Amino acid sequence: MRLAELSETSGVSVATLKYYLREGLLHPGQAVSRTQADYDETHVERVRLVRALSEVGGLSLATIGRVLEVITSPGQDWITVLETAQRAIGSGRAADPDSSDGSAPDQPRGPRASAWLVARGWQVHPNDPLIDDLERAWAACDDVGLGLDEERMNAYADHVERIGEIDVSTVPADPEGAIRQVILGTVLVDPVLAALRRLAHQHISVSRTASH
Amino acid sequence: MRLAELSETSGVSVATLKYYLREGLLHPGQAVSRTQADYDETHVERVRLVRALSEVGGLSLATIGRVLEVITSPGQDWITVLETAQRAIGSGRAADPDSSDGSAPDQPRGPRASAWLVARGWQVHPNDPLIDDLERAWAACDDVGLGLDEERMNAYADHVERIGEIDVSTVPADPEGAIRQVILGTVLVDPVLAALRRLAHQHISVSRTASH
Repeated sequence: MRLAELSETSGVSVATLKYYLREGLLHPGQAVSRTQADYDETHVERVRLVRALSEVGGLSLATIGRVLEVITSPGQDWITVLETAQRAIGSGRAADPDSSDGSAPDQPRGPRASAWLVARGWQVHPNDPLIDDLERAWAACDDVGLGLDEERMNAYADHVERIGEIDVSTVPADPEGAIRQVILGTVLVDPVLAALRRLAHQHISVSRTASH
Repeated sequence: MRLAELSETSGVSVATLKYYLREGLLHPGQAVSRTQADYDETHVERVRLVRALSEVGGLSLATIGRVLEVITSPGQDWITVLETAQRAIGSGRAADPDSSDGSAPDQPRGPRASAWLVARGWQVHPNDPLIDDLERAWAACDDVGLGLDEERMNAYADHVERIGEIDVSTVPADPEGAIRQVILGTVLVDPVLAALRRLAHQHISVSRTASH
């Protein structure tokens, strides 16, 4: 199909598609003349992927570029792939390779989160920037007096662990499909869980009010 | 304390504090002269709140303004407070009062999410914009083929409902404290849960790899 048809099929303007092509977010079509190229289903899928990561996942186009790099470079072992994917999509300063707080990459991570993870027995890389994300998010809750102590953190973690098991159980066996599923599953299921949590608050509150 | 001391205590620059004062995000201090005012602990707490919502919660200053309006206007019933808070901090187009997709406010919400909620028996307002958030997030997962069917949605919801019960159980009885807890708990615990979910993925993956 021509660019105009790709635009129609994907619902993305020709100007935006040209921008994606220039930035390498969309692979070039098969040249059919000096000014025209032919696009196929792989282009439609790629455009859908970029839009989903951008509009629902809230990722910047620069981050999406990094994500696509991971998706299209197979042949790495599973844990490395998972960590690379998590860093590409990671939130917070520690996960952003463009910023630096001046700390060495092997500096010990957030002490409270680290101690909690060890006590819980979760096997994670002791220098993983995600530990800083947890430390910062936890500290922010403390700063405003939310009362999130170790006991409540463990109660949350019990249920999040089960959610993680649901996630991991649906990851396909082929490496490229697995990378795709990990990145998209992490980014795109976050908004699903956030919406469910808010709806659960309503349901629980209505139920409690009704029972009084 | 003077503005310079408030800046030192809160770690926020004088220029930013003046901006907060101009935008109404920070209440005025007690005037002690034509050019000086006195600030107290309530100002320190407010500045901490604004920073936490902005830096960890990722809210815009405009949204924070709406959030503070809710926090500082008590005397509404509990479900209204919850819904107002949820709308102020809501993600997605439907939750943003400044944007419009041209639909009437009482237009039926996302059909798949609505049907699923009814089947599950969750009591939520049938026109709540959160239903659109769920519909959109769910559709985005479908668009990229994540395989999130009704069964898996129910499995997620089982655990999110328990997380919601933990949240609601810690809400204090006084209305102002409750509003504060709902908004902050919703916004600030989201990043905690997101970090926990990614760490759980690592732990589960390492455990599975080790057991092979």
